[in-house]
Amino acid sequence: MLLLRLNLPAHRGLRPLFLFTRFGSRQTQPFSFESKVRSVAMASYSTAATEASRRLLFRQLFEKESCTYTYLLADMGHPAKPAVLIDPVDKTADRDLSLIRDLGVKLIYAMNTHVHADHVTGTGIIKIKVPGVQSVISKASNAKADHLIEQGDKIKFGDLYLEVRATPGHTLGCVTYVTGDGLNQPNPRIAFTGDAVLIRGCGRTDFQGGSSLQLYHSVHSQIFTLPKETLIYPAHDYKGFTVSTVGEEMLYNARLTKDEETFKSIMENLKLAYPKMIDVAVPANMACGLQDVAVKAEAASS
Amino acid sequence: MLLLRLNLPAHRGLRPLFLFTRFGSRQTQPFSFESKVRSVAMASYSTAATEASRRLLFRQLFEKESCTYTYLLADMGHPAKPAVLIDPVDKTADRDLSLIRDLGVKLIYAMNTHVHADHVTGTGIIKIKVPGVQSVISKASNAKADHLIEQGDKIKFGDLYLEVRATPGHTLGCVTYVTGDGLNQPNPRIAFTGDAVLIRGCGRTDFQGGSSLQLYHSVHSQIFTLPKETLIYPAHDYKGFTVSTVGEEMLYNARLTKDEETFKSIMENLKLAYPKMIDVAVPANMACGLQDVAVKAEAASS
Repeated sequence: MLLLRLNLPAHRGLRPLFLFTRFGSRQTQPFSFESKVRSVAMASYSTAATEASRRLLFRQLFEKESCTYTYLLADMGHPAKPAVLIDPVDKTADRDLSLIRDLGVKLIYAMNTHVHADHVTGTGIIKIKVPGVQSVISKASNAKADHLIEQGDKIKFGDLYLEVRATPGHTLGCVTYVTGDGLNQPNPRIAFTGDAVLIRGCGRTDFQGGSSLQLYHSVHSQIFTLPKETLIYPAHDYKGFTVSTVGEEMLYNARLTKDEETFKSIMENLKLAYPKMIDVAVPANMACGLQDVAVKAEAASS
Repeated sequence: MLLLRLNLPAHRGLRPLFLFTRFGSRQTQPFSFESKVRSVAMASYSTAATEASRRLLFRQLFEKESCTYTYLLADMGHPAKPAVLIDPVDKTADRDLSLIRDLGVKLIYAMNTHVHADHVTGTGIIKIKVPGVQSVISKASNAKADHLIEQGDKIKFGDLYLEVRATPGHTLGCVTYVTGDGLNQPNPRIAFTGDAVLIRGCGRTDFQGGSSLQLYHSVHSQIFTLPKETLIYPAHDYKGFTVSTVGEEMLYNARLTKDEETFKSIMENLKLAYPKMIDVAVPANMACGLQDVAVKAEAASS
């Protein structure tokens, strides 16, 4: 993997804002941003004892109906305060945008960990309301987005980045976004696991190309290999937990601590109801949350 | 204010676990604790760049029905990993105790910011299920508890502590618990504001001895005087926000940024419905969440 930097003219005094890099298929998207970003003095809810942790502004947001967590991350040490939003929900998109305005950060990416079946993503609405925001989802999901990411990609925002880890099993296209590795990145690392690892549980594997064995291997090879202190922030929680760690889930996850065969058997016998929202949410989310022009027009006019 | 330390015999190699101190009425409660606390290596969700922040284990927990946040804090740098739980809810007490077991921390205090009107506190149930846990609430609340705290008290857990700030106005007995001040305490500080400051709002002031003018003065003198980067963790959020800062609320709180008269007028014209739970919750919470023996017996048998 290679991390590229965008060299902006020195006299502008600006550091690279964001950049996608992929080993073998280098892509650069220079970004035009406002230099007059509001500089409200605001503490980050940082995660540890490094300067990089202090510069990370981190906010967890909850959508009560689908019990979905949305995450806002921004590099407050960068002049433009570039930000990413992970797993936004259509119903709470205005709340998220209001917070983004208050914090004076500059949203550059609206990202999804996968094609959700239980809610419509807020990505499409946000793209309409905030011109310049680009959508991100995995190539393996076959969904539409501005950036189709794969294992090993790095998604830069300011001097911070998220690493892409392919973690299929709940759906074919699930990924986990992990904050960067190294001295200049937050410590402990933070893993946004989507539905691959939930706190003490995991996502179902009975639709959207799901596979219990694939999920088991994804988690054990891509998530449980991270340092034990890595924070786990899932896409959902139904019991009111907000965060866990790799070490904690390796010890106490009710499903993923079992051996492969037991896990497969558990997942095959969950007897879950057909998801209420799936027939609306999946087609919408395959198209960035904007299923038809009517939705788009409504969003644009409000 | 004076911070007392409990000097345990040196050969036991133990540091003081916890202690209440109050200027003018010094009280010491030595505490018998197990030395064989499980020492699972677990990362704290620390809040900044100090060693004290790293040693603070912090967990936010949500109860969906009343939209209540419960907070777990522990000093992971202390051999006994002493912990406090702020604003537990009866319905989620078992969840909280399960997490406490998993994390290997030793719960010493179950604390309330005030006598809640929208849910029954989990304090009583927790006291029954975990012998040795002591309840904490303000003296001004007139409620029953093992420790009745006042402005300026320090509630120690290991080498960390919470400072008590009286913030009446939502109810007569409301307090805000603020993490300690100084090099050996988490930085930024964390304020558990109860219903005094909610994110972009505040608690109602039309019952339980509430007063809009008193709330206004409490917030402006006790909370908005904290450093701007101080994190605000409220007792509730109804829109899915999880955290704010003093600086943010001083700029964007929809009510508390107004002048006193406007604030009073806003609060007098909220036209809120009579709280559904108040007639059950308040009498129960005045008695630590255990209104009668039947509840107590049921809790003990489950």
